Amino acid sequence: MVSTAVRFLSSIAAEASSLCAEPPVAVAFAPAEDQAFMRLALDEARRGDYPFGAVIVRDDKVIARGRNLGKVHDDPTAHAEMTAIRRCVADHGSAVLRGSTLYATGEPCPMCMGAIIWCHVGRLVFAAATKINQIMVPCADIAANAPFASITIKAGVLADEAMKLFDN
Amino acid sequence: MVSTAVRFLSSIAAEASSLCAEPPVAVAFAPAEDQAFMRLALDEARRGDYPFGAVIVRDDKVIARGRNLGKVHDDPTAHAEMTAIRRCVADHGSAVLRGSTLYATGEPCPMCMGAIIWCHVGRLVFAAATKINQIMVPCADIAANAPFASITIKAGVLADEAMKLFDN
Repeated sequence: MVSTAVRFLSSIAAEASSLCAEPPVAVAFAPAEDQAFMRLALDEARRGDYPFGAVIVRDDKVIARGRNLGKVHDDPTAHAEMTAIRRCVADHGSAVLRGSTLYATGEPCPMCMGAIIWCHVGRLVFAAATKINQIMVPCADIAANAPFASITIKAGVLADEAMKLFDN
Repeated sequence: MVSTAVRFLSSIAAEASSLCAEPPVAVAFAPAEDQAFMRLALDEARRGDYPFGAVIVRDDKVIARGRNLGKVHDDPTAHAEMTAIRRCVADHGSAVLRGSTLYATGEPCPMCMGAIIWCHVGRLVFAAATKINQIMVPCADIAANAPFASITIKAGVLADEAMKLFDN
Protein backbone atom coordinates (compact mmCIF):
# COMPACT_ATOMS: atom_id res chain seq x y z
CA MET A 1 0.00 0.00 0.00
CA VAL A 2 2.84 2.29 0.87
CA SER A 3 4.59 1.78 -2.44
CA THR A 4 1.32 2.64 -4.18
CA ALA A 5 1.14 5.76 -2.06
CA VAL A 6 4.68 6.70 -3.03
CA ARG A 7 3.91 6.23 -6.71
CA PHE A 8 0.82 8.39 -6.29
CA LEU A 9 2.86 11.02 -4.50
CA SER A 10 5.53 10.96 -7.16
CA SER A 11 2.91 11.69 -9.77
CA ILE A 12 1.66 14.57 -7.65
CA ALA A 13 5.19 15.90 -7.34
CA ALA A 14 5.72 15.75 -11.07
CA GLU A 15 2.41 17.44 -11.67
CA ALA A 16 3.09 20.09 -9.05
CA SER A 17 6.44 21.03 -10.53
CA SER A 18 4.83 21.41 -13.92
CA LEU A 19 2.13 23.64 -12.46
CA CYS A 20 4.56 26.25 -11.15
CA ALA A 21 5.19 28.76 -13.89
CA GLU A 22 7.44 30.88 -11.69
CA PRO A 23 10.86 29.64 -10.56
CA PRO A 24 11.00 28.46 -6.94
CA VAL A 25 11.74 31.10 -4.34
CA ALA A 26 13.10 28.80 -1.66
CA VAL A 27 16.52 27.20 -1.63
CA ALA A 28 16.50 23.70 -3.07
CA PHE A 29 17.70 21.46 -0.23
CA ALA A 30 19.54 18.25 -0.95
CA PRO A 31 17.56 15.08 -0.19
CA ALA A 32 19.57 14.40 2.99
CA GLU A 33 18.58 17.79 4.37
CA ASP A 34 14.97 17.23 3.38
CA GLN A 35 15.02 13.94 5.27
CA ALA A 36 16.62 15.52 8.33
CA PHE A 37 13.97 18.23 8.55
CA MET A 38 11.21 15.72 7.84
CA ARG A 39 12.43 13.64 10.78
CA LEU A 40 11.83 16.67 12.99
CA ALA A 41 8.32 16.94 11.59
CA LEU A 42 7.83 13.22 12.30
CA ASP A 43 8.98 13.83 15.90
CA GLU A 44 6.25 16.47 16.18
CA ALA A 45 3.70 14.10 14.66
CA ARG A 46 4.44 11.44 17.31
CA ARG A 47 3.39 13.96 19.98
CA GLY A 48 0.25 15.17 18.18
CA ASP A 49 -3.39 14.46 18.99
CA TYR A 50 -3.46 12.95 15.53
CA PRO A 51 -0.12 11.87 13.98
CA PHE A 52 0.59 14.98 11.95
CA GLY A 53 3.60 17.25 12.38
CA ALA A 54 5.23 20.18 10.62
CA VAL A 55 8.34 22.33 10.80
CA ILE A 56 9.13 25.58 9.02
CA VAL A 57 12.71 26.16 7.87
CA ARG A 58 14.48 29.31 6.79
CA ASP A 59 18.19 29.63 6.03
CA ASP A 60 18.72 26.02 7.12
CA LYS A 61 17.24 26.69 10.56
CA VAL A 62 13.94 25.58 12.05
CA ILE A 63 11.95 28.72 12.90
CA ALA A 64 8.68 27.06 13.96
CA ARG A 65 7.27 23.64 14.81
CA GLY A 66 3.72 22.43 15.04
CA ARG A 67 1.71 19.29 15.68
CA ASN A 68 -1.98 18.51 15.61
CA LEU A 69 -3.58 19.99 18.73
CA GLY A 70 -7.20 19.54 17.72
CA LYS A 71 -8.23 17.67 20.87
CA VAL A 72 -6.07 19.35 23.48
CA HIS A 73 -7.06 22.83 22.28
CA ASP A 74 -10.62 21.83 21.30
CA ASP A 75 -9.87 23.49 17.97
CA PRO A 76 -10.65 21.60 14.74
CA THR A 77 -8.42 24.04 12.83
CA ALA A 78 -5.32 23.24 14.91
CA HIS A 79 -3.69 21.10 12.26
CA ALA A 80 0.07 20.73 12.41
CA GLU A 81 0.74 23.15 9.57
CA MET A 82 -1.64 25.78 10.98
CA THR A 83 -0.10 25.40 14.44
CA ALA A 84 3.40 25.89 13.01
CA ILE A 85 2.32 28.91 10.96
CA ARG A 86 0.52 30.53 13.91
CA ARG A 87 3.56 30.01 16.13
CA CYS A 88 5.85 31.41 13.46
CA VAL A 89 3.69 34.52 13.08
CA ALA A 90 3.47 34.96 16.85
CA ASP A 91 7.21 34.51 17.40
CA HIS A 92 8.70 36.15 14.33
CA GLY A 93 5.99 37.99 12.39
CA SER A 94 4.85 36.96 8.95
CA ALA A 95 7.72 38.26 6.79
CA VAL A 96 10.01 35.31 7.58
CA LEU A 97 7.47 32.91 6.10
CA ARG A 98 7.91 34.41 2.64
CA GLY A 99 10.18 32.01 0.73
CA SER A 100 10.53 29.61 3.66
CA THR A 101 10.21 25.82 3.40
CA LEU A 102 7.45 23.99 5.24
CA TYR A 103 7.84 20.27 5.98
CA ALA A 104 4.65 18.38 6.74
CA THR A 105 4.21 14.69 7.48
CA GLY A 106 0.82 14.69 5.75
CA GLU A 107 -0.28 16.30 2.51
CA PRO A 108 -1.76 19.65 3.58
CA CYS A 109 -5.54 19.90 3.40
CA PRO A 110 -7.08 22.90 1.56
CA MET A 111 -7.22 24.87 4.82
CA CYS A 112 -3.53 24.39 5.52
CA MET A 113 -2.52 24.74 1.88
CA GLY A 114 -4.48 27.97 1.67
CA ALA A 115 -2.61 29.29 4.70
CA ILE A 116 0.70 28.17 3.17
CA ILE A 117 -0.17 30.06 -0.02
CA TRP A 118 -1.32 33.22 1.77
CA CYS A 119 1.93 33.25 3.76
CA HIS A 120 3.96 32.90 0.55
CA VAL A 121 5.84 29.85 1.74
CA GLY A 122 8.20 29.15 -1.15
CA ARG A 123 8.58 25.41 -0.88
CA LEU A 124 6.43 22.63 0.52
CA VAL A 125 7.83 19.20 1.28
CA PHE A 126 5.44 16.56 2.51
CA ALA A 127 5.71 12.89 3.31
CA ALA A 128 2.45 11.07 2.65
CA ALA A 129 -1.13 11.66 1.63
CA THR A 130 -3.70 10.14 3.96
CA LYS A 131 -7.17 9.56 2.62
CA ILE A 132 -9.28 8.94 5.72
CA ASN A 133 -11.62 11.79 6.64
CA GLN A 134 -9.75 14.22 4.44
CA ILE A 135 -10.93 16.96 2.14
CA MET A 136 -9.94 15.33 -1.13
CA VAL A 137 -8.46 18.28 -2.97
CA PRO A 138 -4.76 17.86 -3.81
CA CYS A 139 -2.56 20.63 -2.47
CA ALA A 140 -1.11 21.00 -5.97
CA ASP A 141 -4.58 21.99 -7.20
CA ILE A 142 -4.78 24.75 -4.60
CA ALA A 143 -1.33 26.00 -5.62
CA ALA A 144 -2.18 25.87 -9.31
CA ASN A 145 -5.17 28.12 -8.71
CA ALA A 146 -3.21 30.81 -6.86
CA PRO A 147 -1.58 32.75 -9.70
CA PHE A 148 -0.26 35.41 -7.33
CA ALA A 149 1.91 32.92 -5.40
CA SER A 150 4.93 30.84 -6.36
CA ILE A 151 5.57 27.57 -4.60
CA THR A 152 7.24 24.27 -5.41
CA ILE A 153 5.98 21.02 -3.96
CA LYS A 154 7.96 17.88 -3.22
CA ALA A 155 6.10 14.78 -2.07
CA GLY A 156 7.09 11.38 -0.74
CA VAL A 157 9.98 12.26 1.60
CA LEU A 158 9.97 9.55 4.33
CA ALA A 159 6.46 8.60 3.26
CA ASP A 160 6.75 5.10 4.75
CA GLU A 161 7.65 6.45 8.17
CA ALA A 162 4.76 8.91 8.08
CA MET A 163 2.28 6.20 7.10
CA LYS A 164 3.51 3.93 9.91
CA LEU A 165 2.37 6.50 12.45
CA PHE A 166 -1.19 5.58 11.57
CA ASP A 167 -0.65 1.91 12.48
CA ASN A 168 -0.71 2.67 16.21
CA MET B 1 -20.38 43.68 -13.37
CA VAL B 2 -22.36 43.10 -10.23
CA SER B 3 -25.27 41.48 -12.03
CA THR B 4 -22.80 39.15 -13.73
CA ALA B 5 -21.37 38.33 -10.34
CA VAL B 6 -24.84 37.58 -8.99
CA ARG B 7 -25.60 35.29 -11.92
CA PHE B 8 -22.29 33.53 -11.32
CA LEU B 9 -23.07 33.22 -7.64
CA SER B 10 -26.54 31.87 -8.36
CA SER B 11 -25.03 29.14 -10.48
CA ILE B 12 -22.64 28.30 -7.65
CA ALA B 13 -25.55 28.14 -5.22
CA ALA B 14 -27.50 25.82 -7.48
CA GLU B 15 -24.45 23.64 -7.95
CA ALA B 16 -23.66 23.63 -4.24
CA SER B 17 -27.14 22.50 -3.26
CA SER B 18 -26.93 19.66 -5.75
CA LEU B 19 -23.56 18.62 -4.35
CA CYS B 20 -24.83 18.02 -0.84
CA ALA B 21 -26.01 14.44 -0.59
CA GLU B 22 -26.91 14.80 3.08
CA PRO B 23 -29.78 17.00 4.23
CA PRO B 24 -28.73 20.35 5.74
CA VAL B 25 -28.01 20.38 9.45
CA ALA B 26 -28.63 24.06 10.05
CA VAL B 27 -32.01 25.76 10.28
CA ALA B 28 -33.10 27.33 6.99
CA PHE B 29 -33.45 31.03 7.74
CA ALA B 30 -35.90 33.17 5.82
CA PRO B 31 -34.29 35.65 3.40
CA ALA B 32 -35.02 38.61 5.69
CA GLU B 33 -33.07 36.96 8.48
CA ASP B 34 -30.23 36.13 6.10
CA GLN B 35 -30.10 39.77 5.06
CA ALA B 36 -30.14 40.96 8.67
CA PHE B 37 -27.22 38.76 9.64
CA MET B 38 -25.37 39.63 6.43
CA ARG B 39 -25.69 43.31 7.35
CA LEU B 40 -23.83 42.55 10.56
CA ALA B 41 -21.11 40.86 8.52
CA LEU B 42 -20.98 43.92 6.26
CA ASP B 43 -20.56 46.09 9.36
CA GLU B 44 -17.56 43.98 10.30
CA ALA B 45 -16.19 44.23 6.76
CA ARG B 46 -16.27 48.03 6.92
CA ARG B 47 -13.91 47.88 9.91
CA GLY B 48 -11.52 45.32 8.42
CA ASP B 49 -8.02 45.77 7.04
CA TYR B 50 -9.51 44.50 3.82
CA PRO B 51 -13.29 44.75 3.39
CA PHE B 52 -14.24 41.26 4.48
CA GLY B 53 -16.46 40.41 7.44
CA ALA B 54 -18.14 37.36 8.94
CA VAL B 55 -20.57 36.44 11.69
CA ILE B 56 -21.46 33.02 13.08
CA VAL B 57 -25.05 32.41 14.10
CA ARG B 58 -26.57 29.69 16.22
CA ASP B 59 -30.21 29.51 17.39
CA ASP B 60 -30.84 32.93 15.82
CA LYS B 61 -28.07 34.56 17.87
CA VAL B 62 -24.68 35.84 16.81
CA ILE B 63 -22.05 33.85 18.71
CA ALA B 64 -18.93 35.25 17.00
CA ARG B 65 -17.87 38.04 14.70
CA GLY B 66 -14.74 38.53 12.66
CA ARG B 67 -13.16 40.88 10.17
CA ASN B 68 -9.94 40.80 8.19
CA LEU B 69 -7.07 41.60 10.55
CA GLY B 70 -4.23 40.69 8.23
CA LYS B 71 -2.39 43.98 8.56
CA VAL B 72 -3.09 44.88 12.17
CA HIS B 73 -2.09 41.41 13.37
CA ASP B 74 0.62 40.92 10.74
CA ASP B 75 -1.07 37.58 10.05
CA PRO B 76 -1.89 36.63 6.44
CA THR B 77 -4.25 33.94 7.75
CA ALA B 78 -6.41 36.42 9.70
CA HIS B 79 -9.24 36.40 7.18
CA ALA B 80 -12.68 37.37 8.46
CA GLU B 81 -13.98 33.80 8.58
CA MET B 82 -10.87 32.51 10.36
CA THR B 83 -11.01 35.36 12.84
CA ALA B 84 -14.66 34.59 13.61
CA ILE B 85 -13.97 30.87 13.97
CA ARG B 86 -10.96 31.42 16.24
CA ARG B 87 -12.98 33.77 18.44
CA CYS B 88 -15.86 31.32 18.57
CA VAL B 89 -13.54 28.49 19.61
CA ALA B 90 -11.84 30.70 22.20
CA ASP B 91 -15.11 32.00 23.66
CA HIS B 92 -17.37 28.96 23.42
CA GLY B 93 -15.34 25.90 22.41
CA SER B 94 -15.78 24.14 19.10
CA ALA B 95 -19.01 22.19 19.73
CA VAL B 96 -21.26 25.20 19.10
CA LEU B 97 -19.88 25.52 15.57
CA ARG B 98 -21.37 22.18 14.57
CA GLY B 99 -24.54 22.97 12.62
CA SER B 100 -24.13 26.73 12.96
CA THR B 101 -24.54 29.22 10.11
CA LEU B 102 -21.61 31.34 8.97
CA TYR B 103 -22.28 34.57 7.08
CA ALA B 104 -19.38 35.94 5.05
CA THR B 105 -19.29 39.02 2.85
CA GLY B 106 -16.85 37.31 0.46
CA GLU B 107 -16.82 33.79 -0.90
CA PRO B 108 -14.54 31.87 1.48
CA CYS B 109 -11.12 30.96 0.10
CA PRO B 110 -9.94 27.33 0.39
CA MET B 111 -8.26 28.10 3.72
CA CYS B 112 -11.43 29.50 5.24
CA MET B 113 -13.70 26.94 3.58
CA GLY B 114 -11.47 24.17 4.89
CA ALA B 115 -11.81 25.59 8.40
CA ILE B 116 -15.59 25.87 7.94
CA ILE B 117 -15.72 22.21 6.88
CA TRP B 118 -13.48 20.98 9.71
CA CYS B 119 -15.69 22.82 12.22
CA HIS B 120 -18.80 21.21 10.74
CA VAL B 121 -20.55 24.51 10.13
CA GLY B 122 -23.92 23.43 8.75
CA ARG B 123 -24.75 26.35 6.51
CA LEU B 124 -22.69 28.96 4.70
CA VAL B 125 -24.23 32.16 3.39
CA PHE B 126 -21.99 34.51 1.46
CA ALA B 127 -22.52 37.73 -0.44
CA ALA B 128 -20.09 38.08 -3.31
CA ALA B 129 -17.11 36.39 -4.92
CA THR B 130 -14.12 38.64 -5.45
CA LYS B 131 -11.57 37.58 -8.00
CA ILE B 132 -8.58 39.79 -7.30
CA ASN B 133 -5.64 38.01 -5.68
CA GLN B 134 -7.80 35.07 -4.69
CA ILE B 135 -7.17 31.37 -4.74
CA MET B 136 -9.56 30.47 -7.53
CA VAL B 137 -11.14 27.35 -6.11
CA PRO B 138 -14.91 27.66 -5.52
CA CYS B 139 -15.95 26.93 -1.96
CA ALA B 140 -18.54 24.52 -3.36
CA ASP B 141 -15.69 22.43 -4.79
CA ILE B 142 -14.08 22.18 -1.36
CA ALA B 143 -17.42 21.15 0.18
CA ALA B 144 -18.07 18.60 -2.58
CA ASN B 145 -14.76 16.91 -1.80
CA ALA B 146 -15.43 16.56 1.93
CA PRO B 147 -17.69 13.51 2.08
CA PHE B 148 -17.56 13.41 5.88
CA ALA B 149 -19.20 16.84 6.23
CA SER B 150 -22.64 18.17 5.38
CA ILE B 151 -23.08 21.81 4.50
CA THR B 152 -25.43 23.88 2.39
CA ILE B 153 -24.25 27.01 0.61
CA LYS B 154 -26.27 30.07 -0.28
CA ALA B 155 -24.62 32.77 -2.38
CA GLY B 156 -25.54 36.28 -3.47
CA VAL B 157 -27.16 37.70 -0.31
CA LEU B 158 -26.55 41.48 -0.43
CA ALA B 159 -23.90 40.89 -3.08
CA ASP B 160 -24.15 44.46 -4.43
CA GLU B 161 -23.46 45.95 -1.00
CA ALA B 162 -20.47 43.67 -0.48
CA MET B 163 -19.02 44.57 -3.88
CA LYS B 164 -19.42 48.30 -3.19
CA LEU B 165 -17.00 47.98 -0.27
CA PHE B 166 -14.24 47.48 -2.84
CA ASP B 167 -14.97 50.80 -4.52
CA ASN B 168 -13.36 52.78 -1.71
